[in-house]
Amino acid sequence: MRNVEFVRHFTKYAAGSVLIRQGDTWVLCTASVENKVPSFLRDSGRGWVTAEYAMLPSSTATRKDRDIKKLKQDGRSVEISRLIGRALRASLDMAKLGERTITVDCDVLQADGGTRCASITGGMVALEDAVRGLMARGELSENPIVRRVAAVSVGICGGKPTADLDYAHDVSADVDMNVVMTSDGRFVEIQGTAEHEPFDEEQLETLRRLAKEGCQALFAAQAQALSDN
Amino acid sequence: MRNVEFVRHFTKYAAGSVLIRQGDTWVLCTASVENKVPSFLRDSGRGWVTAEYAMLPSSTATRKDRDIKKLKQDGRSVEISRLIGRALRASLDMAKLGERTITVDCDVLQADGGTRCASITGGMVALEDAVRGLMARGELSENPIVRRVAAVSVGICGGKPTADLDYAHDVSADVDMNVVMTSDGRFVEIQGTAEHEPFDEEQLETLRRLAKEGCQALFAAQAQALSDN
Amino acid sequence: MRNVEFVRHFTKYAAGSVLIRQGDTWVLCTASVENKVPSFLRDSGRGWVTAEYAMLPSSTATRKDRDIKKLKQDGRSVEISRLIGRALRASLDMAKLGERTITVDCDVLQADGGTRCASITGGMVALEDAVRGLMARGELSENPIVRRVAAVSVGICGGKPTADLDYAHDVSADVDMNVVMTSDGRFVEIQGTAEHEPFDEEQLETLRRLAKEGCQALFAAQAQALSDN
Amino acid sequence: MRNVEFVRHFTKYAAGSVLIRQGDTWVLCTASVENKVPSFLRDSGRGWVTAEYAMLPSSTATRKDRDIKKLKQDGRSVEISRLIGRALRASLDMAKLGERTITVDCDVLQADGGTRCASITGGMVALEDAVRGLMARGELSENPIVRRVAAVSVGICGGKPTADLDYAHDVSADVDMNVVMTSDGRFVEIQGTAEHEPFDEEQLETLRRLAKEGCQALFAAQAQALSDN
Amino acid sequence: MRNVEFVRHFTKYAAGSVLIRQGDTWVLCTASVENKVPSFLRDSGRGWVTAEYAMLPSSTATRKDRDIKKLKQDGRSVEISRLIGRALRASLDMAKLGERTITVDCDVLQADGGTRCASITGGMVALEDAVRGLMARGELSENPIVRRVAAVSVGICGGKPTADLDYAHDVSADVDMNVVMTSDGRFVEIQGTAEHEPFDEEQLETLRRLAKEGCQALFAAQAQALSDN
Amino acid sequence: MRNVEFVRHFTKYAAGSVLIRQGDTWVLCTASVENKVPSFLRDSGRGWVTAEYAMLPSSTATRKDRDIKKLKQDGRSVEISRLIGRALRASLDMAKLGERTITVDCDVLQADGGTRCASITGGMVALEDAVRGLMARGELSENPIVRRVAAVSVGICGGKPTADLDYAHDVSADVDMNVVMTSDGRFVEIQGTAEHEPFDEEQLETLRRLAKEGCQALFAAQAQALSDN
Repeated sequence: MRNVEFVRHFTKYAAGSVLIRQGDTWVLCTASVENKVPSFLRDSGRGWVTAEYAMLPSSTATRKDRDIKKLKQDGRSVEISRLIGRALRASLDMAKLGERTITVDCDVLQADGGTRCASITGGMVALEDAVRGLMARGELSENPIVRRVAAVSVGICGGKPTADLDYAHDVSADVDMNVVMTSDGRFVEIQGTAEHEPFDEEQLETLRRLAKEGCQALFAAQAQALSDN
Repeated sequence: MRNVEFVRHFTKYAAGSVLIRQGDTWVLCTASVENKVPSFLRDSGRGWVTAEYAMLPSSTATRKDRDIKKLKQDGRSVEISRLIGRALRASLDMAKLGERTITVDCDVLQADGGTRCASITGGMVALEDAVRGLMARGELSENPIVRRVAAVSVGICGGKPTADLDYAHDVSADVDMNVVMTSDGRFVEIQGTAEHEPFDEEQLETLRRLAKEGCQALFAAQAQALSDN
Repeated sequence: MRNVEFVRHFTKYAAGSVLIRQGDTWVLCTASVENKVPSFLRDSGRGWVTAEYAMLPSSTATRKDRDIKKLKQDGRSVEISRLIGRALRASLDMAKLGERTITVDCDVLQADGGTRCASITGGMVALEDAVRGLMARGELSENPIVRRVAAVSVGICGGKPTADLDYAHDVSADVDMNVVMTSDGRFVEIQGTAEHEPFDEEQLETLRRLAKEGCQALFAAQAQALSDN
Repeated sequence: MRNVEFVRHFTKYAAGSVLIRQGDTWVLCTASVENKVPSFLRDSGRGWVTAEYAMLPSSTATRKDRDIKKLKQDGRSVEISRLIGRALRASLDMAKLGERTITVDCDVLQADGGTRCASITGGMVALEDAVRGLMARGELSENPIVRRVAAVSVGICGGKPTADLDYAHDVSADVDMNVVMTSDGRFVEIQGTAEHEPFDEEQLETLRRLAKEGCQALFAAQAQALSDN
Repeated sequence: MRNVEFVRHFTKYAAGSVLIRQGDTWVLCTASVENKVPSFLRDSGRGWVTAEYAMLPSSTATRKDRDIKKLKQDGRSVEISRLIGRALRASLDMAKLGERTITVDCDVLQADGGTRCASITGGMVALEDAVRGLMARGELSENPIVRRVAAVSVGICGGKPTADLDYAHDVSADVDMNVVMTSDGRFVEIQGTAEHEPFDEEQLETLRRLAKEGCQALFAAQAQALSDN
Repeated sequence: MRNVEFVRHFTKYAAGSVLIRQGDTWVLCTASVENKVPSFLRDSGRGWVTAEYAMLPSSTATRKDRDIKKLKQDGRSVEISRLIGRALRASLDMAKLGERTITVDCDVLQADGGTRCASITGGMVALEDAVRGLMARGELSENPIVRRVAAVSVGICGGKPTADLDYAHDVSADVDMNVVMTSDGRFVEIQGTAEHEPFDEEQLETLRRLAKEGCQALFAAQAQALSDN
């Protein structure tokens, strides 16, 4: 596993702002709070968490055009934004959040594999900082965060089970699995994909175990980063 | 499991055209062949399979606006299109396909849960019909299809493991997993999502077994449908 | 004239759902009801009917890209959607419909000429089924349908007046005319276009007569299809 | 019929530039020539004419938002652009034009009814000026214009057949018909629409005669405007 | 300086409608009034002026595609629209205007350099005509126009300071400066750009003086044009 | 003037990557090189520099929606992108750059006034780093950078001339001027805008002097930052 570092309060405006650096993968995760909810939740007393993932043009080896140039959000970014949103929603009791929307923006400054997982792991810290702010200002009386989530990518590279794949490992992996877990060892989301050769139950089992270990390390890092105000 | 039916040669223009009816879920899967590939494959000798998923406005209980009205492809459709494409690509040896692109369009005529899985299972049949056409016309000498894929949604609904979820089951499921398998019992893609409560290893194991059984039934149905020309 | 067939209640969600098969031209016509009207009719006590026409990518001999790919609705589809809307509105007394909008979606599953006319003729049946539903549920006390409409394409192909042009006839026609009529023999819309050589009054007269006969056959088929519940 | 005036050479850049003033309807029609054709005509030796119709925001009683604001071309403008293009193409022998595209832009400066017909009638003059320029510069040896076209709107307003409807007549018309004719009295396009009550054969006949007279007056005006260089 | 001419009341619908002809640069400037303001001014008692600048496709030597074709407003037009809006807002006391928005549309019919300046100079006259209308109808009791603005482009062309650059001068200018002034000789906006070689303080001083003289001539022309009703 | 800091080589992929921190204004400026030019420069032997400016959603006090959500690039961003591009182009001899395009992306991580000026000042350093890379790899034999540019915003706030406005000063400024200069004290671009009250020659003169001093401080900081490899 690559070293992971959380720079909390990285920028000053968003309610939560965390720069996560996982090896050479750097994602700026910010959480912004609004006192309104999507129409399907209006008058439900429940809140919402949504996420937006994007890569800066210079975050990859070859410069990537901005979405606005093509007037189309990149398909991969759409898929990842939806995954991050689902993952982070699992950490909250929406009734306790009340009719608020927290938008977690995950902007990749530098990509070296595992950006979707780093976005979830870092976004969790930004989300918690935003919630702490709501509580400190008395806008929330009870903590809506019921568990933390973290995510790791695992894969089988050249026959060898590997956790926290960087870009070089990612492109060469036979199987690639992104796993979102809770600190009590349960699953929020599992996405395993056979890039080349289908995988069997044993490989799935191996990857699952590896993911669990990887997430435990990330939970420890999150806890330490969040241990002071 | 709901009854599944494949109407092959449903429409006349596409190289493969299959209406899959899985209970009240109806998807028109068509495969169209073009003698060109995306730029990243040019001069590689390899082919490509891509998929597009869309719902007709009247396919759901409440009419759904067309994407073109908002000038934005529905995020869920983007995510599903990418999944179908990855799943179907796993069935082919792209070197044997040669520099051709097969586009599999999955248009949902009526949605009652499991449309993404039906699209994969039915799209496989349309893809095979398209390939048979290429072989019959002598454009391909060797069959590029190295295995069939099929997909099933499984979930835990009210505590009870259930396969092939219809819409009523889908919305009430605690855990929802879409599994794409090969006929030899291996995995191409696993996507498990905890909608409400995270799931544990035992539940994952249960769903995996259930998915395997479900896919076996679908492989049998595919084989029968494809047994005559 | 090609054989015409109406499969009513083809799909289950829309208030009216009709698959019209006119030779190899197949259009799924569905009518959906909403209890609101466009802003220019608000508080007028009057209703509205609008139509949307689109072709599935695989409905034509060469696969057609989806509009969303170009972020632009196909110009021909815009023109046809507007024609269908005008035609179907002529069948209703909007004051009797009340402040409701009925959207008629015409999705071409397979195109072999005459899709805009089939959309009108089939859309009429879907619209009537939707209205019957409103009346059966007591939402309407009086039938707002004051007349049925049907449409036929006529043309002069190789010097010979021809009705209900399939694609092969359509592309070779010197004059091409789409005529929307009412069952009492009057016109709702006439659109005649000289593709190659301008046409004279005699030709117009011939086509008009032919269109009238064609529409009469379609009205008979509509009446029979709608004769049972 | 309202007075019609053609100001040729209104602006200086386009190959043909005509301001047509028909009562208070003013349309700037310009014809621009490019030495290329759409892909379906490449290497055919044939040319193409296309038209674009748009209204300035201030051309109507209530300011109209620009299309770009909604990122969508107004549906009515799409329909009218297509009509103008078909009409003007009927005036040319495309083989004689050679592989050139003439784009006729019809920008409505002020709209008081009949803008689509004025665009055709004025666009014809701009097109002819552009062709004269090609011939004067020796780029064309033979005149590709084989006939002139003109268009008039006719209608039945309060029971009274009326030609060249201004906006007040247009909105009150029971039947509204746009007719594109050639100077030898034949039809290029007929578009009749019953706004309120369907129309019968006798009314169609009346409108047709009226349109013929109207077009004859317009052909005379065109001929006079084009009589000098 | 080229001759400048203002044709007031050029079209009939807009509250103010002025065709400004400055040499071969022709811009139709219209001012439309709406009784609403952007959301950031709601309930402020203050009004707003905004501007939209666009070029007709045939206004330039080479035909220019419409923005809607690319689904993107031309970057230069965005920049110029914002400049015109800022310039015209400087002429009004927004509290006296009250909660109204005046939209000034500047549509270039023919471009021969200096279109942004002509849009400001002509837009001022259209704006004043719109305000006069509001006052004449008793909708405004006090004139919100506190000063007039006009704009001129100045530059150094082949070493020679030049005012009111036409297109030929504009493309060859070493320095190009657009200056918006008030009739009392103060500045609303200065935009100086070194196209080739940076400019020094002396050149800036020269251009500033030249711009002042140029604007004085334009203020005289505006005053004369507005001297009668 | 606020403290300014340049973090060179901030990210690893772009040819030049500089984080400029000017007080609480932070902009990530990256320069990417491509071996192609826009079509108007093809076969000219000359290169091009273009810039793209954008703000991260969380960079401002209130979260700002992404452009892609509205399918429209923010007008202010368009205007600023064009300004940055013009400014940076003034630093290069395009013939010496050869047929290459350098794209300078300026992504605002945190905005506290003066972001467009910081983008130019920081973008210059990124551009120089990219050019040094080209020279180090032998792709360029002669340095195309002929001068450095820097930019500062100056204004009159509460009657007091002020340089390097932060957001609080910016919104309260009576006059606001952005000045792009070269190290030899000449001007590349001057954009002065009277937000409230027009400004006179004396104020312009004061601001110009202030800008010159401000830019000199920035040139010193640039030189120091670039003094080592």
